[in-house]
Amino acid sequence: MFSNLAHMTTSSSRVRMSPESRREQLLELGTRLLATRTLDEISIELLAEEAGISRGLLYHYFHSLQEFHVAVVRRAVEDLYAITAPRDVGDPLEQLSVSLGAYVDFVSENYTGYVSLVRAASGSNEEIRKIYQDARRALTDRIFDIAGAEELATVGVVDSPATRLLTDGWAAMVEDVVMAWVTDPHGLSREELLNRLARALPAVVVA
Amino acid sequence: MFSNLAHMTTSSSRVRMSPESRREQLLELGTRLLATRTLDEISIELLAEEAGISRGLLYHYFHSLQEFHVAVVRRAVEDLYAITAPRDVGDPLEQLSVSLGAYVDFVSENYTGYVSLVRAASGSNEEIRKIYQDARRALTDRIFDIAGAEELATVGVVDSPATRLLTDGWAAMVEDVVMAWVTDPHGLSREELLNRLARALPAVVVA
Repeated sequence: MFSNLAHMTTSSSRVRMSPESRREQLLELGTRLLATRTLDEISIELLAEEAGISRGLLYHYFHSLQEFHVAVVRRAVEDLYAITAPRDVGDPLEQLSVSLGAYVDFVSENYTGYVSLVRAASGSNEEIRKIYQDARRALTDRIFDIAGAEELATVGVVDSPATRLLTDGWAAMVEDVVMAWVTDPHGLSREELLNRLARALPAVVVA
Repeated sequence: MFSNLAHMTTSSSRVRMSPESRREQLLELGTRLLATRTLDEISIELLAEEAGISRGLLYHYFHSLQEFHVAVVRRAVEDLYAITAPRDVGDPLEQLSVSLGAYVDFVSENYTGYVSLVRAASGSNEEIRKIYQDARRALTDRIFDIAGAEELATVGVVDSPATRLLTDGWAAMVEDVVMAWVTDPHGLSREELLNRLARALPAVVVA
């Protein structure tokens, strides 16, 4: 992929990609770089060095580096949402555990960028904060949408504003624990981690 | 207090406070302002307007506004630690619930400043991040120190690295839920909130 992108710096006619494909490639490159770099580290210089992307080419598709960063974060968050989609197997807790496993893998594989995204979202960047908050909301909403009221009732969960408030808190806990676990498992196996986090949700929300 | 501080701008001999007392007064003013302002809003102009503190006076006690902000945050966090001290009444969960109640009140009364502190700690300010992280660590360590191993065992909690990891996550959840609850209780009474949060700790850490 990097060698393809290198061609993009030449404006010669031998590269016949649609604008959408090029924009797409730039976003893929950005999310790949974000795995091991912070947002701030994704500079024009790095893009030039890693994939021969010139300032002119980037600015053809994005108004600014900041706009590129925002688009990369949006894409990374879409990827996270997609890979953590629950599979329709087992009871709600088993489904939740599978989704959590995908989340743990995502954080593991994209650790540096994920931490920088969380920090940017907690800091002064309003645009990234909104993307992050919308994503967290969508992830927790999906738990309720997928399971459905009847199925949730089997584990004692009643959907209500209080339940949603506590579920948001549970998501904050999951994020905190997983980011720490990835750097040091503290003697917890991956399976134990997933079990603890999944079981914690009903424990927190059931009255 | 504000009228006393107004005198401090005059360097006349009628104000006979020790340097420690003056520094102390400045910190008290700072933490009081932080209740309803963000850190960024605590400017030299605000200090002059609210309490007649001149740039010269502030810089006599602190090298910079940034140093003053850091000292104010340290003081606010010390206050939080002090007022959430567990009372030696009831079982570990009741003690925890009482501490949580004090924490909820602190966040309620200092909402704007507390949110800005959490954001500063999550953002790029390394010094404030360290104060914040040390405080959160001290708050969770105290749960284990106070209760003691035997008492914890009565609620099924065994102290271990995994328990500490999950307790840190629980603290992240408490912070997230309480900050949201203060702005909108979502139908949860204060008592219900404290019960849910207190019960969540053993639910999360017990294997």
